[in-house]
Amino acid sequence: MSRPHVVIIGSGFGGIRAAKGLAHVEVDVTLIDANNFHTFQPLLYQVATAGLDADDIGFPIRRIFRRNHSISFVLGEVTNIDLQHQTVAVDRDRVFGYDYLVIAAGSVSTSFGIDGVGTHTFALKTLQDALRLRAHLLSRFERASADPATPVDLGVVVVGGGPTGVEMAGGLRELIDKVFRKDYPDLAATPTPITLVEAADRVLGTFHRSLSDQAAAALQRRQITVELGTGVDHVEPDAVVLKDGRRVPAGTIIWAAGVAASPVSRLLGIELARGGRIPVGSDLSLAGHPNVFAIGDIALSPGEPLPQVAQPAIQGGSHVAAVIAARLEGRTIPPFRYRDKGSMATIGRNQAVAELPYGLRFHGFIGWLMWLGLHLIELMGFRNRANVFVNWAWNYLTYDRGSRLLLDKPIGS
Amino acid sequence: MSRPHVVIIGSGFGGIRAAKGLAHVEVDVTLIDANNFHTFQPLLYQVATAGLDADDIGFPIRRIFRRNHSISFVLGEVTNIDLQHQTVAVDRDRVFGYDYLVIAAGSVSTSFGIDGVGTHTFALKTLQDALRLRAHLLSRFERASADPATPVDLGVVVVGGGPTGVEMAGGLRELIDKVFRKDYPDLAATPTPITLVEAADRVLGTFHRSLSDQAAAALQRRQITVELGTGVDHVEPDAVVLKDGRRVPAGTIIWAAGVAASPVSRLLGIELARGGRIPVGSDLSLAGHPNVFAIGDIALSPGEPLPQVAQPAIQGGSHVAAVIAARLEGRTIPPFRYRDKGSMATIGRNQAVAELPYGLRFHGFIGWLMWLGLHLIELMGFRNRANVFVNWAWNYLTYDRGSRLLLDKPIGS
Repeated sequence: MSRPHVVIIGSGFGGIRAAKGLAHVEVDVTLIDANNFHTFQPLLYQVATAGLDADDIGFPIRRIFRRNHSISFVLGEVTNIDLQHQTVAVDRDRVFGYDYLVIAAGSVSTSFGIDGVGTHTFALKTLQDALRLRAHLLSRFERASADPATPVDLGVVVVGGGPTGVEMAGGLRELIDKVFRKDYPDLAATPTPITLVEAADRVLGTFHRSLSDQAAAALQRRQITVELGTGVDHVEPDAVVLKDGRRVPAGTIIWAAGVAASPVSRLLGIELARGGRIPVGSDLSLAGHPNVFAIGDIALSPGEPLPQVAQPAIQGGSHVAAVIAARLEGRTIPPFRYRDKGSMATIGRNQAVAELPYGLRFHGFIGWLMWLGLHLIELMGFRNRANVFVNWAWNYLTYDRGSRLLLDKPIGS
Repeated sequence: MSRPHVVIIGSGFGGIRAAKGLAHVEVDVTLIDANNFHTFQPLLYQVATAGLDADDIGFPIRRIFRRNHSISFVLGEVTNIDLQHQTVAVDRDRVFGYDYLVIAAGSVSTSFGIDGVGTHTFALKTLQDALRLRAHLLSRFERASADPATPVDLGVVVVGGGPTGVEMAGGLRELIDKVFRKDYPDLAATPTPITLVEAADRVLGTFHRSLSDQAAAALQRRQITVELGTGVDHVEPDAVVLKDGRRVPAGTIIWAAGVAASPVSRLLGIELARGGRIPVGSDLSLAGHPNVFAIGDIALSPGEPLPQVAQPAIQGGSHVAAVIAARLEGRTIPPFRYRDKGSMATIGRNQAVAELPYGLRFHGFIGWLMWLGLHLIELMGFRNRANVFVNWAWNYLTYDRGSRLLLDKPIGS
């Protein structure tokens, strides 16, 4: 009578999709996450740059599965995985047995062991990161305005030329030039330097080179210095020191240089692949543990490593749900095959690059419209979509960004 | 050549209105507040009950005065007022001289010296209060759901039967019955008690008795226990003990019983009126200091004490701006006269009471439509209005409340 129990770790794109795929399968699902909400990570930079509210891109998990009584949500940190006894421990003492386990814990920002990254930079992986960065940016400007006698470095260095770094740099330029320049007229005379540092010889390394060049040119037109082909040696409290010895001073340093698998992978006690990723087979299960799957950023499937973005996680989640459903019915399904649906990055107002299958490439205004439409469609739930639309329309028409409340008062007496 | 300098302390309804009134007068204005945003306090309870985002009811002050170059904003805590040398100190060492001073620092929650209020209750005066309360409510339900073996008291006591207490109790009932009941199906079987405690013999004591009775009946129809005519003796960590000796257990205790003037009033070193309010004359200036004004919650103007709500502050702000403008031109204007524009309180969906001038009274659905329209009109700025409208339409149509992210993780391992 008792139905098989599927435990899913993580409510990112992969975990949510796996749970949705299992909603009408004869299993009970327990979905575990340390946050009570799903984060639409591609728009984190918009929260950090005051274009969107946290509530616009965070969606309560219990709401998503309200109508699916076979899916329960557990709020907590996964502290142990016992492959032998088939249990997962949450917050140490809450233990859940499983028949199937789906590990979809995602990735975390990594310093690659570079000195000073952990203490002197802002990451941009979680909603809390984005809010912390936003508060820091606002406080820097408040402080500079409060006491003109003590100079405050308002400059920003963004390390990492992938989509996150590029979008962050572009969003910052709009926040600073369109909003802060009016909010702080006393500071408007001095331009605020923004530097994007990328170790490779081009930004957006996973895109076609023509789009990389388009993006770099668009950044430069926006007075963003693009430093290519130079890695970071170490980070100081108020500067990034490059491998070639140059020192780029900055009051705000944003680390978007790379991710590693969530530390949840280490709980397995198995040999991990590069970046802590969990090696899986063509059905996305662990060698020797056909009922344990890993998907998304935390997994490494056979063949070319998949990019650590939303699409592989979403497709992995669908696939694992289908594998479990098939097993229960004694069927088999073809191995996992990733379908590249393309990728996009926006540099700002009217400017984005889009790389689609079949060699289709767009940039500029058309690319930007595609970016806009796709992100609206992908956002979960009508309410978020409507709020994002209102905020974007407002930002576009007025060049304003409304979400700049300093709620945690990082400055003051 | 140098223009008179007006310092305004506080960017609530009164301070903002005074600054707006002075925008086109030949003065320079410095507006000081400890937050970088104006809070639309009448809707705080909606943030606390997850109906609205913080950004919906907080408005960046620099944005409000962006086009008024004669108005500067200073973020910080007022730490000293020197009436003799005509200076105001912010964060101790930033000192501003003034020709005119407008004190509009508002009010704070007060315990009336009742034991346990400060440590065991949640206030609802600031946006930070509202977010803290929301996080607490969400965590209580998460914790109860996490560990059914350890009972968690989900009950709520709201102390204070004014508009804040009534609206809070009504909003809580909707959050718990329409949202939490579906989010936590395991907890839905047990009803969650909500109690409203009021020392007077009716709720909404400033309204006509017929509306008080309507409101109390509407609360009771929503399974809210209304305890009238009984004060609070003391508050324990998990219960309110009434003066008649009864103990009302509750996991969440909300203190909406009253306010006192902001401690800024004590910086003046003058004799204060009841509740720490600053006594002012009929031009709203301090006796012996014709260039120092106090308005809104922190002030006590001659005659019947004005209610500590938005309207007296707004009208006081307008009046003080007019007095200063008149003085500069050598004119005089008639003394301040408060015009009662009425008051409203909503109990929930389709249910509000409205008391207007000329004995006009409304309740039920009509009262609720009036409440809705008035608050939308009064909210500052198109963007907030549009966001609030989207959220309210969503809440109304779906019975959902979207803003329930637990961002500061008060529970966990």
